[in-house]
Amino acid sequence: MQHQRIAALLQAEPSMQEITVKGWVRSFRNDRFIALNDGSTIHNLQCVIEPDNFERTLLDQVNVAAAVAVTGTLVESAGSGQRVELQAKNVTILGTADPEEVAKTILSPKRHKLETLREQAHLRVRTNTFGAVMRVRAALSFAVHKYFQENGFYQAHTPIITGSDAEGAGEMFRLSTLDPKNPPLDEDGNIDYKQDFFEKESNLTVSGQLEAETYAMGLGQVYTFGPTFRAENSNTSRHLAEFWMIEPEVAFNDLDANMDLSEDFIKSVVKYALDNCKDDLDFLENRLIQEDKSKPQAERSPMELRKKLEFILKNNFKRVSYTEAIDILKSSKPNKKKKFKYLIEEWGADLQSEHERYLVEKHFECPVILFDYPADIKAFYMRLNDPDSEGRETVRAMDILFPGIGEIIGGSQREERYEVLKDKMDTMGIPEEELWWYLETRKFGSVTHSGFGLGFERLVMFVTGMSNIRDVIPYPRTPGNAEF
Amino acid sequence: MQHQRIAALLQAEPSMQEITVKGWVRSFRNDRFIALNDGSTIHNLQCVIEPDNFERTLLDQVNVAAAVAVTGTLVESAGSGQRVELQAKNVTILGTADPEEVAKTILSPKRHKLETLREQAHLRVRTNTFGAVMRVRAALSFAVHKYFQENGFYQAHTPIITGSDAEGAGEMFRLSTLDPKNPPLDEDGNIDYKQDFFEKESNLTVSGQLEAETYAMGLGQVYTFGPTFRAENSNTSRHLAEFWMIEPEVAFNDLDANMDLSEDFIKSVVKYALDNCKDDLDFLENRLIQEDKSKPQAERSPMELRKKLEFILKNNFKRVSYTEAIDILKSSKPNKKKKFKYLIEEWGADLQSEHERYLVEKHFECPVILFDYPADIKAFYMRLNDPDSEGRETVRAMDILFPGIGEIIGGSQREERYEVLKDKMDTMGIPEEELWWYLETRKFGSVTHSGFGLGFERLVMFVTGMSNIRDVIPYPRTPGNAEF
Repeated sequence: MQHQRIAALLQAEPSMQEITVKGWVRSFRNDRFIALNDGSTIHNLQCVIEPDNFERTLLDQVNVAAAVAVTGTLVESAGSGQRVELQAKNVTILGTADPEEVAKTILSPKRHKLETLREQAHLRVRTNTFGAVMRVRAALSFAVHKYFQENGFYQAHTPIITGSDAEGAGEMFRLSTLDPKNPPLDEDGNIDYKQDFFEKESNLTVSGQLEAETYAMGLGQVYTFGPTFRAENSNTSRHLAEFWMIEPEVAFNDLDANMDLSEDFIKSVVKYALDNCKDDLDFLENRLIQEDKSKPQAERSPMELRKKLEFILKNNFKRVSYTEAIDILKSSKPNKKKKFKYLIEEWGADLQSEHERYLVEKHFECPVILFDYPADIKAFYMRLNDPDSEGRETVRAMDILFPGIGEIIGGSQREERYEVLKDKMDTMGIPEEELWWYLETRKFGSVTHSGFGLGFERLVMFVTGMSNIRDVIPYPRTPGNAEF
Repeated sequence: MQHQRIAALLQAEPSMQEITVKGWVRSFRNDRFIALNDGSTIHNLQCVIEPDNFERTLLDQVNVAAAVAVTGTLVESAGSGQRVELQAKNVTILGTADPEEVAKTILSPKRHKLETLREQAHLRVRTNTFGAVMRVRAALSFAVHKYFQENGFYQAHTPIITGSDAEGAGEMFRLSTLDPKNPPLDEDGNIDYKQDFFEKESNLTVSGQLEAETYAMGLGQVYTFGPTFRAENSNTSRHLAEFWMIEPEVAFNDLDANMDLSEDFIKSVVKYALDNCKDDLDFLENRLIQEDKSKPQAERSPMELRKKLEFILKNNFKRVSYTEAIDILKSSKPNKKKKFKYLIEEWGADLQSEHERYLVEKHFECPVILFDYPADIKAFYMRLNDPDSEGRETVRAMDILFPGIGEIIGGSQREERYEVLKDKMDTMGIPEEELWWYLETRKFGSVTHSGFGLGFERLVMFVTGMSNIRDVIPYPRTPGNAEF
């Protein structure tokens, strides 16, 4: 029994040909109207049955969350709200759902808190909100691959397990197959990692960048799209211990070209979602409007969801050097009136999210790319600029700041000069014996190159309007939570 | 200085417009011909210079592996082997490469063993072979996303870190942030994982299938494409500790539909490579022909690379039940003559790769899908058939066997019946307290569903003709090796 997907049927013309649909019951009204969903779209197909033609025992099994197959013909809908509906000739129960059991779960047809949905993460994709979020997530994911494919990039599957802990982007998860209770010790009484699976200490990667750089030196333009990890005890709505990251890396690109690429890239994927996820974004936009109604004015979204996305597409991102930004912030009202939690007093200060939000939301009122940060507050691999007229050292770093969300992309031109990089590694205590291979790429035809990292979940949050990062990934991993 | 990519230039028409290319020197002949590669294609662009117009000091830096920018005009090539070449007006050295240092590496222009290339994995993508393999890998990766996108699937990013070790597909890597030397102990003297990051023991996933199933119950058709892990001490040419897996999962599909999907899918991605990687496959095919010359006749490839791929496209995969396969094997010559290492004596035997290869390469001479395996040798989640006439129990499992490579896909229809699954978990010792959520999906509108897993590196091996799995992934992880 071939079945058809509801997304396609809702676009189809009425026809006398008999078809079968399969899905899950979202509601059953008056023994007559089954709202059927199969996950292909947020919309349900209305299946209309003539109750007299069906056994009571069957109708009693058409409950919310039950799976059914319905055979019939697609006709013009008599009711409002849909163009077509299925005139049902036959209904088969594929899988029952006991209403009493359903009532205990988030599948029951009432409003559930996002916190409750998280506890039943194995079921939440069957709700409208999570169905929509996860379809948009999948569309964005495809848009990423499509963009890079169309622009001559190759995906490089950089390793997840790394023998290095020197990447410096954060705390790492250690992995091992040694007996955890009685690990073998070496002569000095330390754990003898030579006996471990990889014969050395190994960790989960925090970034594929360094390996991606080696691949950019061969293939020219590459990107990674894979999971990365942080063993940081950050129980916030913006942090996950496991998240997906996109990291393009391009030979011959300087920082300006890197800014061009990042702006073009993010606009392209946002546009893809706007063009391809209309129904889900409609729903999510309405969801936000409803949610905002229960919030005080000051916490409400300044723009409706799609307006916000279109705003990103229409505006050139404002490019501002760190030095300019500091000047703006120093003389800003919140700084003078001591409204910032961290007052900006001098050049060299690390920017906090309150400062980033001020720049984006109050001062420039558009997405901002900050660049040329002080060398001291940035990573060892970033390209050192010549000192400025006051002798201050900056690196060719860039961060893209978005309204509402703050930093969404961080990137840099990389230090391509062997001696400068080596000195920097020495100074910053990056062990050469671990990253010898990275340093060595600077020996053989080393070139200017740049790249950036985009935390995929941050992007999904921005596009779906969800405010907790745990709600944009199927099974979030956070401190104390590796359930499912 | 905007630059153009060589892949595009080699397709372009001669033009008087001045252009710049950037890349790495593959060879420099007679002070006149620079073969330049930028990774966009396996082909080099020939840049022709008039030596009298350039300083000796500059020419001396045009060495193998150096990075240069060449400006000039694209003209019809005087020589054979290329349609166009670049008449160079200007050459800039972007990054030097000391010939003495290069001579110590695999970048030196001579044949290197694959083993040597592996030791310099940070440089090997700059060789012809690895450039080709990694471009084909990237193309296959995109083809996977494209296929599922076009067929209404949503990618589901299932978790990498799992709190469960019950998935049963193999040994797992444990991860932790506890002090490895002095881990906290509980009252019973066991490691107190409540104090660990996730407050329980946690591992790296061996498969996203179980979580993907929960998503298929909401979105209908989903797939995963992510890294999976096996902590098995298998030092073979076919095993990695970290590899990428593709796992589609489809609601309402029975095993027949699953076979249809898997066959259509694999043909589609192989076709994509044939259509889009012509130059790289040309090179890899020739590489195999050369390699075969040094091998004894019996070990040579029976078909040229592209013939083999086209063979897959043209033939229907032969569908054979396990029971039929056992009958064929029992009465086969190698079994009767005791040439098999493991003789097939009775129904219930697990098939070894020698048997799989016999079926594919000798008996059927085409790809084979084996199905309905004995329940005892397969996983707990597979759909149980009614016993056959002799009372033997089978499950709706399937394996796709390919010539030369053996099993490339394994899948099954899943057990959708709550009570049957629960009993099976009990019998096989799968703890319900860990997989309660998996079992629970069978409670609410449970439906027939199926899926399969494809080890992505096995596919890349098959399409590129590489015979060691370490040579189809950028940085292979194997026992004792997590370098780079």
